[in-house]
Amino acid sequence: MGRLEETLKRIGEPDGAAMGQARARQDQLTKPPGALGALEEISIKVAGIAGEAMPRPGRKVVLVMAADHGVTAQGVSLYPRDVTAQMLHNFLAGGAAINVLARHVGAEVRVVDVGVAVDVEAEGLTVRKVRHGTADMSEGPAMSREEARACVEAGIAVAEEELEAGAWMLAAGDMGIGNTTAASAITAAMAGMDPREVTGRGTGLDDEGLERKVGVIRRALEVNRPHPSDALDVLAKVGGLEIGAIAGVMLAAAAARRPVLVDGFISGAGALIAAGLHPLAPHFMLASHLSVERGHAVILERLGLHPIIRANMRLGEGTGAALGFSLVEAALKILSEMATFAEAGVSGPEGEQG
Amino acid sequence: MGRLEETLKRIGEPDGAAMGQARARQDQLTKPPGALGALEEISIKVAGIAGEAMPRPGRKVVLVMAADHGVTAQGVSLYPRDVTAQMLHNFLAGGAAINVLARHVGAEVRVVDVGVAVDVEAEGLTVRKVRHGTADMSEGPAMSREEARACVEAGIAVAEEELEAGAWMLAAGDMGIGNTTAASAITAAMAGMDPREVTGRGTGLDDEGLERKVGVIRRALEVNRPHPSDALDVLAKVGGLEIGAIAGVMLAAAAARRPVLVDGFISGAGALIAAGLHPLAPHFMLASHLSVERGHAVILERLGLHPIIRANMRLGEGTGAALGFSLVEAALKILSEMATFAEAGVSGPEGEQG
Repeated sequence: MGRLEETLKRIGEPDGAAMGQARARQDQLTKPPGALGALEEISIKVAGIAGEAMPRPGRKVVLVMAADHGVTAQGVSLYPRDVTAQMLHNFLAGGAAINVLARHVGAEVRVVDVGVAVDVEAEGLTVRKVRHGTADMSEGPAMSREEARACVEAGIAVAEEELEAGAWMLAAGDMGIGNTTAASAITAAMAGMDPREVTGRGTGLDDEGLERKVGVIRRALEVNRPHPSDALDVLAKVGGLEIGAIAGVMLAAAAARRPVLVDGFISGAGALIAAGLHPLAPHFMLASHLSVERGHAVILERLGLHPIIRANMRLGEGTGAALGFSLVEAALKILSEMATFAEAGVSGPEGEQG
Repeated sequence: MGRLEETLKRIGEPDGAAMGQARARQDQLTKPPGALGALEEISIKVAGIAGEAMPRPGRKVVLVMAADHGVTAQGVSLYPRDVTAQMLHNFLAGGAAINVLARHVGAEVRVVDVGVAVDVEAEGLTVRKVRHGTADMSEGPAMSREEARACVEAGIAVAEEELEAGAWMLAAGDMGIGNTTAASAITAAMAGMDPREVTGRGTGLDDEGLERKVGVIRRALEVNRPHPSDALDVLAKVGGLEIGAIAGVMLAAAAARRPVLVDGFISGAGALIAAGLHPLAPHFMLASHLSVERGHAVILERLGLHPIIRANMRLGEGTGAALGFSLVEAALKILSEMATFAEAGVSGPEGEQG
């Protein structure tokens, strides 16, 4: 049995008893029941994930998975492919958006090369390269099925390293010029939707560029005919190496019963692959923000996830998920730190003493 | 000239030059222009507020304004009026939601009694009581015009104390059983809308309770006929003492050129009064979350404010605004801490070196 199957086997149901205890406590806290909305729901979900009535958050790590995309040859992005490797140096120097936001919320950033086209040598970079970028999906499969499995397993391996080193909560971000094209293709394939409905402007395509991108995705789906119910097949044919690694992170978190934050569209595509590999995986995921990329809403709805942040973001890297970390912590602190009606001597509804 | 007029006189336009510089810098940072959406917009707005191209956030204070409402005699809330005073003790003991969330984001909480029905003695409480709760607005004016002015000036005074003591960013929260009724009445009056369109379930009214509440608001508006373009008249006739104080906080922040966060529906009603007193006041406000209370969206739209957090919250106290503080800080750190394309050696669109 491979590492993927071993991980899938460890994924179980959320802990219903812990969720019930968390919900009961939320209703005793000094606020009208439900008045903290999604913060209450998040605390209950995380209680079920961790199997504790009152989970205390610990170390938070954003795993930024980087890879290149052969489909950039079709002119689907405004930025040259070189930017993927250049951005790795920026991440490692601490100058990118994800570094700033991770510092702000007290999270660590780990950068993983799972398939950048060039070989990058930089201190602090984790190299788990499965291949030097994908092939052009508009002409054939982006990668082989073995490579698809390998990038998922690379994500599992790195996530497990972090979890074993004490990470309590993970997020999976991405870097890869051209990867909204892959994410759109995955979403169209798995949701059975027309590419036009799930394709956006990425880093800023104009109308003509968007038309071209939709056409490229349509061609990729026609050429490859990915099987919607076989997530590894979809990943291999129209996916990306970083997207596979993101799916691996989500599966490893689920297996370890730790919450994992979904970032934007690319991270969501990874979550969709993870859910295709194990139907319980979304129970261990938390949404953070809703991206401008239109396919993201489709993904989150399919996964049953509710984003709290609506900031018209479309950067990736894990930037929305980093902000989400802080909201999850806030939710857990509400659960554990607020006084109950009885403790505070505050009256409940209609004058009953709570 | 009174304290209110002096404050209004100090409110000016945002600094367009600082905004232009902030926008130019955002476009040089290592991300596609606009990819951080609302975070970019917030940083530019705050640059204009503070008159600095790269503002650095400092001390953050949530002012929780508390008062009672005579209209509770009409059965508009599930909770007894005593809860307002009881919650003051909870705030001061650090056990309420606002305490937990303020600690989480590194903000201070200051609690102000501007009109609680009973006299509360508690260490740490600021007493600026204008009267012991409002009168029942369904039978006549909630307070006199002089009292309306006095509660706005109480808010100005407390905010100025905090600003003089080094607060860099403020938020205005509320506590007051019955205050969604007042906020709905203010919104209906100032927006010229039917009470039904701006009235929600508050702490959890059922359908019958909601009907009663709408009827009470309708009666209050008929009995009092507040003049929509005279904000002090609206505040006096159908407002609340804490709502007036919140308006004062917003005006003081605008006069001092400091950002002030709007919390939920009650805080929004205070913001509406502030905007009625000075049309430039909203330029110094930032929205945080969108409340479940339906009138909140009406208010934010009128003020031209865009909430980032959609968490189905409806608690007040400043809870949404506290979370908002962290997002404003994140936005300002993006502006000041991210590397530019040139600094990081990253290529711009179409291979141009940035």
